[in-house]
Amino acid sequence: MWNSPKVGILGGGQLGRMLVESANRLNIQCNVLDAENSPAKQISAHDGHVTGSFKEHESVRELAKSCDVVTAEIEHVDTYALEEIASQVRVEPSWQAIRTIQNKFNQKEHLRKYGIPMADHRELVNNTPEDLAAVGEQLGYPLMLKSKTMAYDGRGNFRVNSKADIPEALEALKDRPLYAEKWAHFKMELAVMVVKTKDEVLSYPTVETVQEDSICKLVYAPARNVSDAINRKAQELARQAVAAFDGKGVFGVEMFLLDDESLLLCEIASRIHNSGHYTIEACPLSQFDTHIRAILDLPIPPQSLELRQPSIMLNIIGGAAPDTHLQVAEAALSIPNASIHLYSKGAAKPGRKMGHVTVTAPSMYEAETHIQPLIDVVDKIRAQRSDVKTKPQASGPSKPAPTVAVMMGSDSDLKTLVPGLKLLRDYFGIEPAVDITSAHRTPTFMAEYSASAAARGIKVIIAAAGGAAHLPGMAAAHTALPVIGVPVKGSSLDGVDSLYSIVQMPRGVPVATVGINNSINAALLAARILGSFDPAIQRKVEAYAENARTENMDLKGTKMQELGWEKYFEQM
Amino acid sequence: MWNSPKVGILGGGQLGRMLVESANRLNIQCNVLDAENSPAKQISAHDGHVTGSFKEHESVRELAKSCDVVTAEIEHVDTYALEEIASQVRVEPSWQAIRTIQNKFNQKEHLRKYGIPMADHRELVNNTPEDLAAVGEQLGYPLMLKSKTMAYDGRGNFRVNSKADIPEALEALKDRPLYAEKWAHFKMELAVMVVKTKDEVLSYPTVETVQEDSICKLVYAPARNVSDAINRKAQELARQAVAAFDGKGVFGVEMFLLDDESLLLCEIASRIHNSGHYTIEACPLSQFDTHIRAILDLPIPPQSLELRQPSIMLNIIGGAAPDTHLQVAEAALSIPNASIHLYSKGAAKPGRKMGHVTVTAPSMYEAETHIQPLIDVVDKIRAQRSDVKTKPQASGPSKPAPTVAVMMGSDSDLKTLVPGLKLLRDYFGIEPAVDITSAHRTPTFMAEYSASAAARGIKVIIAAAGGAAHLPGMAAAHTALPVIGVPVKGSSLDGVDSLYSIVQMPRGVPVATVGINNSINAALLAARILGSFDPAIQRKVEAYAENARTENMDLKGTKMQELGWEKYFEQM
Repeated sequence: MWNSPKVGILGGGQLGRMLVESANRLNIQCNVLDAENSPAKQISAHDGHVTGSFKEHESVRELAKSCDVVTAEIEHVDTYALEEIASQVRVEPSWQAIRTIQNKFNQKEHLRKYGIPMADHRELVNNTPEDLAAVGEQLGYPLMLKSKTMAYDGRGNFRVNSKADIPEALEALKDRPLYAEKWAHFKMELAVMVVKTKDEVLSYPTVETVQEDSICKLVYAPARNVSDAINRKAQELARQAVAAFDGKGVFGVEMFLLDDESLLLCEIASRIHNSGHYTIEACPLSQFDTHIRAILDLPIPPQSLELRQPSIMLNIIGGAAPDTHLQVAEAALSIPNASIHLYSKGAAKPGRKMGHVTVTAPSMYEAETHIQPLIDVVDKIRAQRSDVKTKPQASGPSKPAPTVAVMMGSDSDLKTLVPGLKLLRDYFGIEPAVDITSAHRTPTFMAEYSASAAARGIKVIIAAAGGAAHLPGMAAAHTALPVIGVPVKGSSLDGVDSLYSIVQMPRGVPVATVGINNSINAALLAARILGSFDPAIQRKVEAYAENARTENMDLKGTKMQELGWEKYFEQM
Repeated sequence: MWNSPKVGILGGGQLGRMLVESANRLNIQCNVLDAENSPAKQISAHDGHVTGSFKEHESVRELAKSCDVVTAEIEHVDTYALEEIASQVRVEPSWQAIRTIQNKFNQKEHLRKYGIPMADHRELVNNTPEDLAAVGEQLGYPLMLKSKTMAYDGRGNFRVNSKADIPEALEALKDRPLYAEKWAHFKMELAVMVVKTKDEVLSYPTVETVQEDSICKLVYAPARNVSDAINRKAQELARQAVAAFDGKGVFGVEMFLLDDESLLLCEIASRIHNSGHYTIEACPLSQFDTHIRAILDLPIPPQSLELRQPSIMLNIIGGAAPDTHLQVAEAALSIPNASIHLYSKGAAKPGRKMGHVTVTAPSMYEAETHIQPLIDVVDKIRAQRSDVKTKPQASGPSKPAPTVAVMMGSDSDLKTLVPGLKLLRDYFGIEPAVDITSAHRTPTFMAEYSASAAARGIKVIIAAAGGAAHLPGMAAAHTALPVIGVPVKGSSLDGVDSLYSIVQMPRGVPVATVGINNSINAALLAARILGSFDPAIQRKVEAYAENARTENMDLKGTKMQELGWEKYFEQM
């Protein structure tokens, strides 16, 4: 392959720049078509660049002369120029794909044919109040009035809350080709980066995007509190949608997750995308690496698209003054695990994307904790802007998902569990989820609770029960997690009934049984299990044992040496 | 800070290039002093570079004029030029540090003053056979004859096996200033990258380096089979050594780990280093990021130097023909999780560093498995070189460290354990460490074995014992790991004695007890614990339950429906 293929890029903004970063590492020359000294050109010193605009026919023609393959960092290119050069040079993705996608109405009409679920939409044939009112009748309010073309970062969109907004909406988007979209009442916005190669369609994980002022503010990878099933479904939908277009390269797919857990496609970008920047740090191959590989028919191991660690990306956006955004970059220098990317676009306008920061961490909660002070800086800077009026998107670390679930068959078992619960919370700093779930009185709830525990992030279950103690064993039958059973001493048989009921499980369904009423040991066992994979917890287990040793030897032992056994006994 | 500081770099090879990559992301301009179109200049398009050599006084003087701080990607620079410019511009690290370090004899004499442990060495005042023989008497053979200056990648070193080698050694290194070093019988070579800032000395994790033909071939991060204690001790030694020098920036420290687990410092580089390339992918801030930050007094959160995942770096070295090394890069495209860095140095000479590949993975074993086919390609290419005669360094994935330890008090318990052992190995693919460790007959061995288990990579212990069954509880008293106890049924009391002895542990030392003789459940419980942190294992636990369900309902249930209970019973 290293017979020096030359890649032509329409556009030399930050996306082009990050593409060049990837190409540089493979020693692949990128010829960039854009203004002189544009961000991408700054990190690519050679005389193959073209000065001009990706919207000019002549410049595209000139670029094509020097390249083996031409791609674009933006949809808003001259696809007629691409169509012409496609006879001399490979264009990836195809000019047809870019042409269809750059017109959002055509994009959706096209996807509709492939059975992709989307919010209902209607073309506005004439930009008249009457026509829009008629569409409003059909779709209901609120609805989104959208420009078919040249719409990005909220520009070209207008929310129409009722019939009364129609004149203002048409005025705001006048002289644009329009369509209207039924309002999607979504609970979360998701995105998936898709890589289309010569013979397959691969996808990165499903991420959560948070928009503010109609611009992407934050990306959480993976999406928070989204089940594995939704994660996979969103990836499938994204791959299916991208498969509907010709050509190779990376595509960005944005989706809505509705309250009923169903997905609607929001829109597709025929290029690397802001919602995929996290891949630079979080995945072995970034979206820029895979785009370069896909358009050059180089191999892409699918495993290289998986996450190394959870990550959060925060955009650095232009503030009130041309250099206000640098305060974010400066603050980011002190954020643990933060990687900073500035795009070198010169002076900033309010709302312009000037850079981004990605924080990776072993857990999403940790990443959220690290990045929060930076979000605070971003919110403060935004509040100084005269062009925005609304409050910032609420943020803040979501409470860490509990890793230990404690179940009891009845509240009468709570007393026995309290010492263990206190040890977990107060000594180990582990806040467990605590529930009453009886195997006998609420068998269905108990089954569902146990079966869904792993998907909720639970790593260990502690279950206490007395008498004919079925709860731990039944929980174990409904989950693949380790279940710790605490036999509770009842009014008869001294707890031996509970012990046998819990420990003597049939082959195939184990319960990790501790001593009768010994919730302290159940808590310690849970901590030992977590500690095998979390050094901080393991060190606390070690310290607990060390304290016990000290107490026994240094305090009690010394005291007995001093007093002698008889006095010691008298004082007990 | 973003008042555009300009960084001058002496040298524009691959290290300079990767420094520029980092600086680019912070929009910091680097002015590179080296030949035109050198690797670093190719990714930094501006007119501030200086054409010339980092060994020329005049060129260094010219570079200084345009920069706020000057640094070097190599030790072999003109430190007298640096000394001169230090009055006008900051030089980091200090010219004094570079001058001392670039002369390896002086470097060691300096470090000796700070109490850094090193192999014994002697200066060779005259390069005569008599002088060297006298030194050989003092140090013993084999010894390493070394050039004080301009020594790197094995050049300037000669191994003297006996007195008979003396003439050849002196001929090979003639006209060089020499010293001799006592041979270090090391079991492993370690390295630590250290970051010296204006007010602290930070370190990256301890890594293992594998040299071939006196050039770094592989770097394993973290070092394999090295305890936490050694990892920390090596980092401390490295920080202590670097603290002995003035100035800011990243330093590479190479060490020997001897058989008795003691450490000897091998040498220091006053710059970013090949053994730190893994940090680009494996750590939130790479050595290049932290060097740029350190010399500009920008904050470096210490946590950002920790590993995201285990990783392995493999150098891409020039082969027999100028483009042979590209076969390695081409093969690397298909390696899962491999990130490729080519340095764009033009045609390769045999043995020249042309690029590197880093593989990250959730476990070192996985990373080793991924990279092995690439090491095979490297070995094949090396075998074609006429300039190397020796066999390649042995490699191959080290056997994965066992995650489950199975202990029994006596071999009479083995029979009970076999079904669980088979399930772990044959169904889960988990090969446990299996040992006889009696609490009563080998109490000291049992204690040591348990206490060191976590450091050996064990995550769960299974312990089986019968009668007055002390083993599981004693093991639990010596480790912070979860211990699963299997009560073995003895000749009397039906195993109830074993069960009570294991489950009724005192508060503070839990044992996860399973049913009497139920090693299947012990194995499944171990798998559930590992599965909480390894989705592949958790899916196997789920499949096991699903198989059991199918067997019960589809096979046995259907059969009973077909036959009726009476016939079914007759056929049992």
